[in-house]
Amino acid sequence: MQTEEALMTRLSDERLAELFDGTLQLVVEHGFDRLTMDQIADATHSSKATLYRQWGSKTALVADALLRSVEAHEMAIDTGHLRSDLHLMLTQDKPDKVQDGALVGALLHAVKHDADLGQVLREKVIAVGRRRIDDVIALAVGRGEVAPDSPGIEYVAFLVISQVVLQPVVDGAPWDDADKLRFVDAVLLPMLGIG
Amino acid sequence: MQTEEALMTRLSDERLAELFDGTLQLVVEHGFDRLTMDQIADATHSSKATLYRQWGSKTALVADALLRSVEAHEMAIDTGHLRSDLHLMLTQDKPDKVQDGALVGALLHAVKHDADLGQVLREKVIAVGRRRIDDVIALAVGRGEVAPDSPGIEYVAFLVISQVVLQPVVDGAPWDDADKLRFVDAVLLPMLGIG
Repeated sequence: MQTEEALMTRLSDERLAELFDGTLQLVVEHGFDRLTMDQIADATHSSKATLYRQWGSKTALVADALLRSVEAHEMAIDTGHLRSDLHLMLTQDKPDKVQDGALVGALLHAVKHDADLGQVLREKVIAVGRRRIDDVIALAVGRGEVAPDSPGIEYVAFLVISQVVLQPVVDGAPWDDADKLRFVDAVLLPMLGIG
Repeated sequence: MQTEEALMTRLSDERLAELFDGTLQLVVEHGFDRLTMDQIADATHSSKATLYRQWGSKTALVADALLRSVEAHEMAIDTGHLRSDLHLMLTQDKPDKVQDGALVGALLHAVKHDADLGQVLREKVIAVGRRRIDDVIALAVGRGEVAPDSPGIEYVAFLVISQVVLQPVVDGAPWDDADKLRFVDAVLLPMLGIG
C-alpha cells in the first residue's frame, strides 16, 4: 500500500489527468474488451509495470479514469429551489466523453463480457451521480417541497442518467437548456408530486 | 429492384431469421465497426455478393436485422386502460439481444463513428417503438384518460426506451414485472397528469 501511495504521489495531477484522458480515448477507439495495458502504456507513455502496480487491472484503471472525469465536473448544487437545482444538474458541464455516447456505448458493450466492470461502474461511477441527486432531493425534502415518501424519488437518478447518456442518441442531438427545463417541468417535478 | 425482390423471395423466412440473428450476434461479438461483410457471409453461410445485392451496405443489413427482431416481438396493445397498456408495453417479451445491453452498447459505440447508422437506427428501429407508444397514448386520449396537450406525452417513448435498454445496466439487473408496474405508477402516470 505504501508503494501505491508513493506512486500516486509521484504522478502529478496533470500527468494523471493526461493518463486518464488518454485511457478513456483508447476505450472509445478500441473498445474496452480489446484494449490492452500495453496499448495504454504506449499511448500514455507510461510503464506497464507502473500501471499494474498502481491499479492492478485494466478494469480498475478505466473505472478510476471515468470517476475522476465525472468528479472533475462536479460542483455543489443548492440554489434554494428544486426546479432550478434539477435544471442546473442537467445543464452543467458534463465530461464530453460521457456525453457523446461513444464511451458509454463502449462500456455498455464491455459490461456484457465483464461482470466486474459492471459492478465497478455501478459502485464507483454511477454511485457518484446517485449521491449528488440524493443530496438535491434531501434539500427539497428539508424545505418541504417534496414529501419524504414520494414514490418518484427513487427514479430521479435513473432519469437523469438516461437523459445524459441516452437522450442524445435516441434523438440524434442533445437537448438545449430550454429543452432540459421542459423535461424538468413535464417529467421530474410531476413525478415528485409537484406541478 | 426486381432482382432484390427475387432474392428476398428466395430467402425463406426461416433462412432470413437465421441470417439476421447471426448478424446481430456478430455485432455483439466483434462490435459494429470491426465487423466485415466477409465475416457475416462466412458465419451465416451466405455469399457476400448476395448480401451486398440485397442490402447494399453493412449498415442497412444490421438495421434490417434489428428492425425484424423488434417487429417479431410486436403485438397489439389495447387493454382498454392506460395503466395496463403501459405495463404490458414494459413487460412483454423483448428481443433478448436488445434487452441485455450488449447489442445496444455495440451500436451506441458505433454511432459515434458512423452517422448513417445513427440515422438509420432512429428512422427505422426507434421509430417503430415511438409509433407503438403513440398508438397507446392516442387510445388513452380517445378514452379521455389523458389530456391531448399533456406535456408529458412527448417523453413517454424516451422513458420506455431508457427502461428497456439502460435500466438493467444502471441497476445491474432488470426490473421484474412488479418493479415495472411501480415505475408506471410512480413516473409515467403522474407525468401524464394521472394519479
